[in-house]
Amino acid sequence: MRIVVVGAGSWGTAVACLLRDNGHEVTLAARDAAQADAMNTTGRNPRYVQAADLAGIVAAPIPDAPVVDAELVVVAVPSRVFGDVVSELPGDSPVVSLTKGLDPTTGARLSTLVRNRPVAVLSGPTIADEIVRGLPAAAVVASDDLELAVRVQVAVHSVLFRVYVSDDVVGVELCAAAKNVIALAAGGADGLSLGDNSKAALVARGLAEMRRLAESAGARPDTFAGLAGMGDLIVTSWSPSGRNRRAGELIARGAKPDEAAAEIGMVVEGLTTAPVLRDLAHRLEIEVPITEGVCAVLEGAPLTDLVTTLMSRAPTTE
Amino acid sequence: MRIVVVGAGSWGTAVACLLRDNGHEVTLAARDAAQADAMNTTGRNPRYVQAADLAGIVAAPIPDAPVVDAELVVVAVPSRVFGDVVSELPGDSPVVSLTKGLDPTTGARLSTLVRNRPVAVLSGPTIADEIVRGLPAAAVVASDDLELAVRVQVAVHSVLFRVYVSDDVVGVELCAAAKNVIALAAGGADGLSLGDNSKAALVARGLAEMRRLAESAGARPDTFAGLAGMGDLIVTSWSPSGRNRRAGELIARGAKPDEAAAEIGMVVEGLTTAPVLRDLAHRLEIEVPITEGVCAVLEGAPLTDLVTTLMSRAPTTE
Repeated sequence: MRIVVVGAGSWGTAVACLLRDNGHEVTLAARDAAQADAMNTTGRNPRYVQAADLAGIVAAPIPDAPVVDAELVVVAVPSRVFGDVVSELPGDSPVVSLTKGLDPTTGARLSTLVRNRPVAVLSGPTIADEIVRGLPAAAVVASDDLELAVRVQVAVHSVLFRVYVSDDVVGVELCAAAKNVIALAAGGADGLSLGDNSKAALVARGLAEMRRLAESAGARPDTFAGLAGMGDLIVTSWSPSGRNRRAGELIARGAKPDEAAAEIGMVVEGLTTAPVLRDLAHRLEIEVPITEGVCAVLEGAPLTDLVTTLMSRAPTTE
Repeated sequence: MRIVVVGAGSWGTAVACLLRDNGHEVTLAARDAAQADAMNTTGRNPRYVQAADLAGIVAAPIPDAPVVDAELVVVAVPSRVFGDVVSELPGDSPVVSLTKGLDPTTGARLSTLVRNRPVAVLSGPTIADEIVRGLPAAAVVASDDLELAVRVQVAVHSVLFRVYVSDDVVGVELCAAAKNVIALAAGGADGLSLGDNSKAALVARGLAEMRRLAESAGARPDTFAGLAGMGDLIVTSWSPSGRNRRAGELIARGAKPDEAAAEIGMVVEGLTTAPVLRDLAHRLEIEVPITEGVCAVLEGAPLTDLVTTLMSRAPTTE
């Protein structure tokens, strides 16, 4: 299959390698032309997942990538540019979104910004560093177009990367966005050295919050117990490489959000998504105390106040 | 309140301290008389959670503990002796079970072995080492007798240990038993260095397996997303101190199950529970592939065969 992967961050690069390993003809399209040149010259991504060997993958700047002729366009760009990038794609090839976030301007799910072509989303517990090291993983592909979902499944699935099909696009996409916000809070618990018990309690309450929000938006409860929900939330909240977790840890230790993002050097989607998710919750009239707390801290409130408030609420029924 | 905690392992000792901190009159009853003597002499438990200061707690051998006069009897003994211990308790004071397992002979939930007195169960992500270090945590108390559940909640709840009430005894108790089996598998993933992605996928599938089993036994789905389900499963599967996780890791690295248990030096409930849970699943006609895999490995099958089998199944719908 001819496939263009748009976005040469760590996850786009890792998925390009998975597709290349499955025998597809892969172009990895970078927003930065110099980065594309470097990938073609050195066979490595100069910025992300340097362990990944790009042999057999052609890199190109986005405008030069063969998008019109592609049978599949995989989009892995930050949420803040997702809308612009997909609206500028020529042709009508189907799109698979790898981006985990919401449109920062409208709060829309990113797949809804893909117009006039079939769209699917791929999500799950997939820390890119592990994938390029050849470690096994599993993910979910969701689409309203089940024929497309199965085509993506067949294209990506391998003995090391299991892909399951789902028809719950709303659930998979909202899980993918919300888990980064909960992971910021989990990182905050790490930064305050609160221990694994309270972090696990926080993450369990966080999943409940994600589920309340997404169910009211039409998602299926099952999705939250699955790979794209609980699976991805756990790995994002516990993996030392999880960038949202790490950002929360740095912020809890005194860094400003932009300082944390700068130290991590990759897009920290949770920082963008938190206020967008809070606004969505307000519109849906759903209580999201952890997301509210994350937003308050990002806006300058002391984290210790938040912990004290959460722990001193009256005891209730679970 | 006058309370006797029966069982001076790490969790019984930690809960005795929580109750003492809340102003209760606490006796910590040990199965081993020498251990009780040592606790009274030194103010420390000689075997478990040595960091815990037992000041204000009276230790006693079980037959000498004031069980008849207690307003609450907290039982924290290994599952294999739970039935004998509770059947020998004098009086009719209510019992709170802290034990996470099933009756090894009959597969019964442990609380059903408590006859002729009210019973509640307390569960959640509560690694004892963290509790005695004063780190915050949260748990669930479940009972068919809601008045008892609330009494236990009030007795145990504090600013550092939040307690929620539930009426789903079946769900809380089956979660508590099954999570140790899934944690053995998660430890196996650690022992094989499979990475956090696949471990998170395994644990998410493990929670689905726990839920299928317990729902068919009458539990509520909500419990699995809560503290006693997902919360406890995560901490048991990720905490370096988790003894079931650690046992799985040692077994994956070549130890026999009894060697792993000996090295850990504490009861590893998952080793006892796995075959009992499998038999329960067979009786209920529920598929539990992870539990089956754990049992096969405990019975001597090579772990690598299991991983290969799980990863090479045909791709499906989630």
